[in-house]
Amino acid sequence: MIISPILDKTSNKALYIQLYEYIKSEITLGLLKPDSKLPSIREASSSLNLSKTTIENAYSQLVAEGYIENLPKKGYFVCDLSEYSYENFTDNHKKTVCKTVDFKYLNDGVDNGSFDISSWKRIYNKVISDKATEIYTNGSFQGESILRDEIANFVNTMRGGNTSPDQVIVGAGVQYLLGVLIGIIKDNHNSVAVENPGYKKAEFIFEDYMFDVKHINITDNSYPIDTLKTSEAKLVYLSPSHQYPLGTIMPVNKRMELLDWAYKNSGLIIEDDYDAIIRYGGMPIPCLQGLDKHNCVIYLGSFSKVLLPALRISFMIIPKNLLPKYHNIKSKYTQSTSKIDQIVLANFMKEGYMLKHIRKIKRIYKKKNLLLTNSIKEKYSDKINIINSDSGLHIVFESLIKKNEGDLNKAATDNHILLNIIGKVESKTLFSLNYSGICMEDISSFTDMLGKVLFE
Amino acid sequence: MIISPILDKTSNKALYIQLYEYIKSEITLGLLKPDSKLPSIREASSSLNLSKTTIENAYSQLVAEGYIENLPKKGYFVCDLSEYSYENFTDNHKKTVCKTVDFKYLNDGVDNGSFDISSWKRIYNKVISDKATEIYTNGSFQGESILRDEIANFVNTMRGGNTSPDQVIVGAGVQYLLGVLIGIIKDNHNSVAVENPGYKKAEFIFEDYMFDVKHINITDNSYPIDTLKTSEAKLVYLSPSHQYPLGTIMPVNKRMELLDWAYKNSGLIIEDDYDAIIRYGGMPIPCLQGLDKHNCVIYLGSFSKVLLPALRISFMIIPKNLLPKYHNIKSKYTQSTSKIDQIVLANFMKEGYMLKHIRKIKRIYKKKNLLLTNSIKEKYSDKINIINSDSGLHIVFESLIKKNEGDLNKAATDNHILLNIIGKVESKTLFSLNYSGICMEDISSFTDMLGKVLFE
Repeated sequence: MIISPILDKTSNKALYIQLYEYIKSEITLGLLKPDSKLPSIREASSSLNLSKTTIENAYSQLVAEGYIENLPKKGYFVCDLSEYSYENFTDNHKKTVCKTVDFKYLNDGVDNGSFDISSWKRIYNKVISDKATEIYTNGSFQGESILRDEIANFVNTMRGGNTSPDQVIVGAGVQYLLGVLIGIIKDNHNSVAVENPGYKKAEFIFEDYMFDVKHINITDNSYPIDTLKTSEAKLVYLSPSHQYPLGTIMPVNKRMELLDWAYKNSGLIIEDDYDAIIRYGGMPIPCLQGLDKHNCVIYLGSFSKVLLPALRISFMIIPKNLLPKYHNIKSKYTQSTSKIDQIVLANFMKEGYMLKHIRKIKRIYKKKNLLLTNSIKEKYSDKINIINSDSGLHIVFESLIKKNEGDLNKAATDNHILLNIIGKVESKTLFSLNYSGICMEDISSFTDMLGKVLFE
Repeated sequence: MIISPILDKTSNKALYIQLYEYIKSEITLGLLKPDSKLPSIREASSSLNLSKTTIENAYSQLVAEGYIENLPKKGYFVCDLSEYSYENFTDNHKKTVCKTVDFKYLNDGVDNGSFDISSWKRIYNKVISDKATEIYTNGSFQGESILRDEIANFVNTMRGGNTSPDQVIVGAGVQYLLGVLIGIIKDNHNSVAVENPGYKKAEFIFEDYMFDVKHINITDNSYPIDTLKTSEAKLVYLSPSHQYPLGTIMPVNKRMELLDWAYKNSGLIIEDDYDAIIRYGGMPIPCLQGLDKHNCVIYLGSFSKVLLPALRISFMIIPKNLLPKYHNIKSKYTQSTSKIDQIVLANFMKEGYMLKHIRKIKRIYKKKNLLLTNSIKEKYSDKINIINSDSGLHIVFESLIKKNEGDLNKAATDNHILLNIIGKVESKTLFSLNYSGICMEDISSFTDMLGKVLFE
């Protein structure tokens, strides 16, 4: 097979992204057929006169998103996406190609000193004194419109979303927003399928609201849609772009199968996009919300954590057909986020400080991530197998452990290591490890400590 | 009967408060017997050599709290509190006597310009740059301890509460906190009794959590505890110190009966103390939480509204015996309030700006309240009967109305008048009217507008 993209070397857009976009578009338009073999990296590099790295980067992104697969010793092949009425999901595929700006979710603490305090203060001081802020009146139930504008723009350009500001609801944390969502959908839903392992704090909320919670075991490193189908839940909560805590990415064929399931069964998908922007190995994975054509996806995101754990600003994007119901009930719920903070954040984004911040923290965390994974590989190549480390602020690894769980947890806590035991895979134990708060210069001693916690 | 208090005219404490405290203590210690008659205002004024106003103020407060009653043409009599094991509730009666500083709840908008922006900004700028704030790490689930200290102190001294900081939970709004409370108590409770009319936004939350909501009709201007008893609910939500929206105050015998009911039935009382500090006619009514000896009361308060509607900081005080359960589950819920705002507020309180602010707004609203009620009396003495106006930021009145409800609501909305139709009492309609956002100089034209809305 020959591929013949027209690439613009003078464009601001990286060549690997142009190549990625080209191949993806060929696949989604049906011009590259399922199961056809792509040129090898060496062949493509030679025929297109591009570096091997460029080809590798484009292919990796396509693999991560499930458009192509890499069969060992055979090469790269186009995946079969045909059975899921792909035309329903593709007409905004151009939009789903995001800029190469990363984003991040801070599980616990962020890099000390990463935040531009002085710009934030300057904006805060201006906003609180500005008559237009109307500090003396109540804020909007839904969120200040200036912030909803910025969020819609952010999700559309950075996450491949497809939303207008009127679909955005602002609130103090995903848990609060789930409460509002339940207020909207409770007449039609009383059970929910959640991932196991998954994000427990969402599950707790559903339990509190007396939902029947069905666990979908994510054992084989990919989302088992068949299990979802037999669960009879019509509502599903998941993190397709970076499964929490396993770190896996749902490939595009699975995404389409999921959207197809939702469309055909009047189902609703809650997409928790908690840290999908921060990928080191390639571009962020575009979100489900942008692929959805049938009002099936609710998108959850958090902004406060991008900036500071101390701030609490999250948002939810609901499908257009839920808006009338939302407007009927919105006055039942008070706005939970400070109006002042909302307007400060909106201006911070508008003036470009958010993108600047994201670029900065991406550099910081990428470096930390590399230092950490290299240090682990150096010291424990025979004992620790790193499974996922190309995005987010935690890595996932497996190891053969003699200690029992209680001792392990105690040792981790005593040494301030944010180690989370995910479960057993055959004889090995699966872990996630947060590293966002560790200083670069401490990483070597940190991995020494990790070895002590795990093996001594 | 003779009363012989020893009053200190050189004390900072107002004479009427000293007299009030003396009589209350005589009653609670059983030295003033039930049904005994107090000296008339004239007699007391003459025998104690105090002004009539002093006596009147002390008596009014005792009447408001239900320690004595004023029988028309007969005089003031001590109420019978004996049947509710009063000794259970009295040993902290000294603490329940608050300072004469008022507090307020801003239903909708606050007086424009009342907030000390420059002090707040100064503290904010200091806090966000201060290393000790630890903006780069997550905040406490329960709330920052510096703020919980201030809140406990505030509730104990200003509201007659009896709490330690470890019982205080901070959150972004009463609705969020009710969610946390439900997480704590849901194993033992699935129904709740609420007031009708009452605070709908609390009721909605219970409904969302699938609680069986039982309405207790507050028709006769006092809480019908018998109805509560037959409702079989073991959880009750009410606003005893200033019923919302009727503005009535639960007298102390009812309070004790309620606490007694809770104690004997393993019941729980959720006390929404939303605006009890802002009383114009006397001291704030001490809260139920301070009277409770048996872990029966959960106290809800809001701070953000004292300062600005734009801020969202509320708090909940739970009984000590619920603390172990809370600590078991607290990590299920993320903190919803900005850590920065929490620490700013704590410092604002610590440095005395809160009390200063409260004194200021109390003066402002008292003046507005007087201007408004006088203007209404002047213009509509034959048409509008003011029922409750001595506290909070709304007045309650009744009137004979020809317009139907729809037209009335439309006229009110069109004219930006925050008029809430509570219900019918015989032929008359009961209303509550918010006035916090109106400028003093506009009050006369505002009441003209009110007349138009109601009668034209």
